[in-house]
Amino acid sequence: MQDQLSNQTEKIILGVDPGTRIAGYGVIRVIGQRIELIQYGVLKLDKYNSHELKLKKIFDRITQLCEEFLPDEMAIEDPFYGKNPQSMLKLGRAQGVAMAAALNRSIPIVEYSPKTVKMSVTGSGSASKEQVAYMLQSILKQELQPEYLDATDAVAIAICHHYHANALPSAASKKKGAKKGAWSAFVSENPNRVK
Amino acid sequence: MQDQLSNQTEKIILGVDPGTRIAGYGVIRVIGQRIELIQYGVLKLDKYNSHELKLKKIFDRITQLCEEFLPDEMAIEDPFYGKNPQSMLKLGRAQGVAMAAALNRSIPIVEYSPKTVKMSVTGSGSASKEQVAYMLQSILKQELQPEYLDATDAVAIAICHHYHANALPSAASKKKGAKKGAWSAFVSENPNRVK
Repeated sequence: MQDQLSNQTEKIILGVDPGTRIAGYGVIRVIGQRIELIQYGVLKLDKYNSHELKLKKIFDRITQLCEEFLPDEMAIEDPFYGKNPQSMLKLGRAQGVAMAAALNRSIPIVEYSPKTVKMSVTGSGSASKEQVAYMLQSILKQELQPEYLDATDAVAIAICHHYHANALPSAASKKKGAKKGAWSAFVSENPNRVK
Repeated sequence: MQDQLSNQTEKIILGVDPGTRIAGYGVIRVIGQRIELIQYGVLKLDKYNSHELKLKKIFDRITQLCEEFLPDEMAIEDPFYGKNPQSMLKLGRAQGVAMAAALNRSIPIVEYSPKTVKMSVTGSGSASKEQVAYMLQSILKQELQPEYLDATDAVAIAICHHYHANALPSAASKKKGAKKGAWSAFVSENPNRVK
């Protein structure tokens, strides 16, 4: 009974997919097993000609989302296979400033591999972005017409975390694709933060 | 006369060298051509077993340094040639949270290649960390006994920025090794921030 009760607690999850050209975000509210999409969108960063200004825009926007929606947790991708080292450094910085916005408000961060995110939403670890967006409409029971698929990717990351967090921590860390037991590590280090 | 006068303005520069195992920092005060070392040290991150906790420690410490010393500018390295993509992602995140701490207080960030930092301090772009540490003692006219060379590296980055920032922006951006005209881009975008 205790498990069922705690699963029905309302929870806000912020999913982010920060790139150096476009940064996607998605905010969901979970009540029991029901998932509501609160907000999703992208930040277009091409127009800013300095790398620092792009990072500041990401930090400011994620900070604003944290203040507006008070997410309980933030979920982000941990891409294992990367492009070239320099692109990965820039991507890491974009992720870093987004993570700092959450850390600054003591919002725990969990990471999932892109494959795990796709698997969680579509059942296939090799699904396309379009397939992910299509399946999200079914899960959320609403039509999504994102201008950029980075926004639906971010929503998918948030939903992936909901599915994993709802499993028992020990089970989640054993699941194929769960990154380095991030959730169970968080649970063990922050026993008071986990509802 | 105007140039000479503005060069004598007191300025605080925070240099950071954030890694995923050890993060170095150095704070210098520049008065005219005189450079004083205010504080330098490292954060040892090995003891934290979650990646997120390491990032939070970096963010918190750099935030604390920004609050304590109110740096006018932060300088950081932009390593062009990297290790493997996954290491670069982690390094990028560590740099990203450090940069976010500065961005959060509207402290402008400038970047220099490792080669430029070494060149500025030792005259050689291929100097070792030990050579950099040795030359810093001559520049700062004081003995340095850092436990970790990451700390002196961070001081070197701050001093490198002092040398470049004191040149005219147009000259700085033409200098061999100045990364992507970061300083001149900042000047053109923030005309009111430059003393």
